[in-house]
Amino acid sequence: MTSSFDVAGLGNAIVDVIAPVDDAFLLKHQIAKGTMTLIDEFRATQLYEALNTTAETGGGSAANTMAGLASLGGNGMFVGKVKRDRLGTSFSQSVKDIGVTFRVPFAEDGPSTASCMIAVTPDGQRSMSTYLGACRELKPSDIDETEIASAQVVYVEGYLWDLPDAKSAIRKAMAAAKKAGRKIAFTLSDPFCVSRWRAEFLELLKSDIDILFANEEEAKSLYEVETFDDVFQHFHNWHGIAALTRSEKGCVVAQRHDVHVIDAHPVAKVVDTTGAGDQYAAAFLYGLTHGKHLADCGRLGSLAAAEVISHYGARPETSLKALAKDAGLL
Amino acid sequence: MTSSFDVAGLGNAIVDVIAPVDDAFLLKHQIAKGTMTLIDEFRATQLYEALNTTAETGGGSAANTMAGLASLGGNGMFVGKVKRDRLGTSFSQSVKDIGVTFRVPFAEDGPSTASCMIAVTPDGQRSMSTYLGACRELKPSDIDETEIASAQVVYVEGYLWDLPDAKSAIRKAMAAAKKAGRKIAFTLSDPFCVSRWRAEFLELLKSDIDILFANEEEAKSLYEVETFDDVFQHFHNWHGIAALTRSEKGCVVAQRHDVHVIDAHPVAKVVDTTGAGDQYAAAFLYGLTHGKHLADCGRLGSLAAAEVISHYGARPETSLKALAKDAGLL
Repeated sequence: MTSSFDVAGLGNAIVDVIAPVDDAFLLKHQIAKGTMTLIDEFRATQLYEALNTTAETGGGSAANTMAGLASLGGNGMFVGKVKRDRLGTSFSQSVKDIGVTFRVPFAEDGPSTASCMIAVTPDGQRSMSTYLGACRELKPSDIDETEIASAQVVYVEGYLWDLPDAKSAIRKAMAAAKKAGRKIAFTLSDPFCVSRWRAEFLELLKSDIDILFANEEEAKSLYEVETFDDVFQHFHNWHGIAALTRSEKGCVVAQRHDVHVIDAHPVAKVVDTTGAGDQYAAAFLYGLTHGKHLADCGRLGSLAAAEVISHYGARPETSLKALAKDAGLL
Repeated sequence: MTSSFDVAGLGNAIVDVIAPVDDAFLLKHQIAKGTMTLIDEFRATQLYEALNTTAETGGGSAANTMAGLASLGGNGMFVGKVKRDRLGTSFSQSVKDIGVTFRVPFAEDGPSTASCMIAVTPDGQRSMSTYLGACRELKPSDIDETEIASAQVVYVEGYLWDLPDAKSAIRKAMAAAKKAGRKIAFTLSDPFCVSRWRAEFLELLKSDIDILFANEEEAKSLYEVETFDDVFQHFHNWHGIAALTRSEKGCVVAQRHDVHVIDAHPVAKVVDTTGAGDQYAAAFLYGLTHGKHLADCGRLGSLAAAEVISHYGARPETSLKALAKDAGLL
């Protein structure tokens, strides 16, 4: 079976609501500066109303990755759940506008579309309050096995493990992909997510996962070790491809004994590191699904990460395809 | 045969003559700021006389390494040539004072003991003028094969390849070591040295060398490639141990598929990077000759490099043994 999609990304469908605030706002609304907190619908509504001028953009880790894939000219589809409300239709439209296929039906009732309220203080810090809402409604019936099986790679967010119903949907998608001989890529998402689901993630690594994305802190959390080399030793005899990212130290990409140590792509000024991991994964997977060697997949990932951290926001502002061509990587 | 020495270091025996100067001095004596230039005896004498207050310390890459080994409590010997003159006896005494065995007889005539005139300007830059002098007199008859064969590792400076007579002495020492089943370690010394002797160094790597020390620039020069990963790929199927140092990026240590990615040891303030490679090699070889695993050899090397770059001068000022114990590496 030939594949219709390069990558199918499965993740939380979240609208980022970004607003400039002052420190008094954080104090009044009891938001801890610089952190990410999960909030309920009541509080989400309160905060949304309290924020003045806002900019709304499609977000969510795997959805950001699909946006990056599209920026490289890749053919992606996204699976995640939004409600048929204002934010939900906005999310859906924003994903489709950049050329990513998105066919999961709207939730017609239940919780509102997920949002991440990002309060940006004058010092440039981002304090995030995330309401998962409709993400919790992703169900096995939302998974079109034929469509999933038509993607070369199925890319799954570790964050989904926080949602019991979504997890069974993901399991269904992974099974369909495996049956069709497709590859399963997984991102550990964040060190706290890893500490919540360590045992399950380690179990997944035994045979389900073919390609793992993890930054240094996530990988240290997974294996409960203190140095990068201790992490790396765990991957020498693993069957899959490990893409281990290290911020300014670059990345190490390994598949058994095929090991590559790749430098970070130079960045004139780091403005906002949000989305670095998402865009790294996007460009890496683009490379992998277009016949590139592991080292060049790592270089593409580093290039995309460098683009996204040089400006605010978690999605590329410049065509990654053009940048990659300029860098001689495509 | 049990070994009497952990390491026998073979290199240029050089006295570092350090003096504070002003920019006018560099101009008057036509010294290019921040570089290392080879000079002849006449110019060496001129410069030495022109320099006012000087501090003289034993130097030379492999001799610095032996000093580091001694600071860790290792048992080292040094092979290099000095003349029986003031600098020569001073060098000889300084090496013996730190517990390194040094039995090569003084040259009784011929060129003076080698010196490296280091003019330090108020901006902290070091401009070096090196006179190799008596180093050129190292001859096969200076090599005591039994003594060499009693060292677990024979460590050779790439710089020696610049001296035709010394080279045959080194060949004799390497043959004696090989015959006794000892290991040969080699440092590429500097990128220009590598470009002068590339073909010979590549030939040595085929079977003579068991342990290679190279910094990133030297290794790139050796293989004429542009990225660290391109360098690293050359070592996947090499028989020996490669210790590839990367300044603040740490080091990668590999023996075939046993690969370790080690972070740089933190340094509060980098004062003077002279000797980083020498001390890295010292501590790495101490680890290797004391049953440490490769990763810990790399960590010991990083620790020693961090010590030496935190102050002026190319030899440790603090006991490396104490530092290594504090760090839990010994």
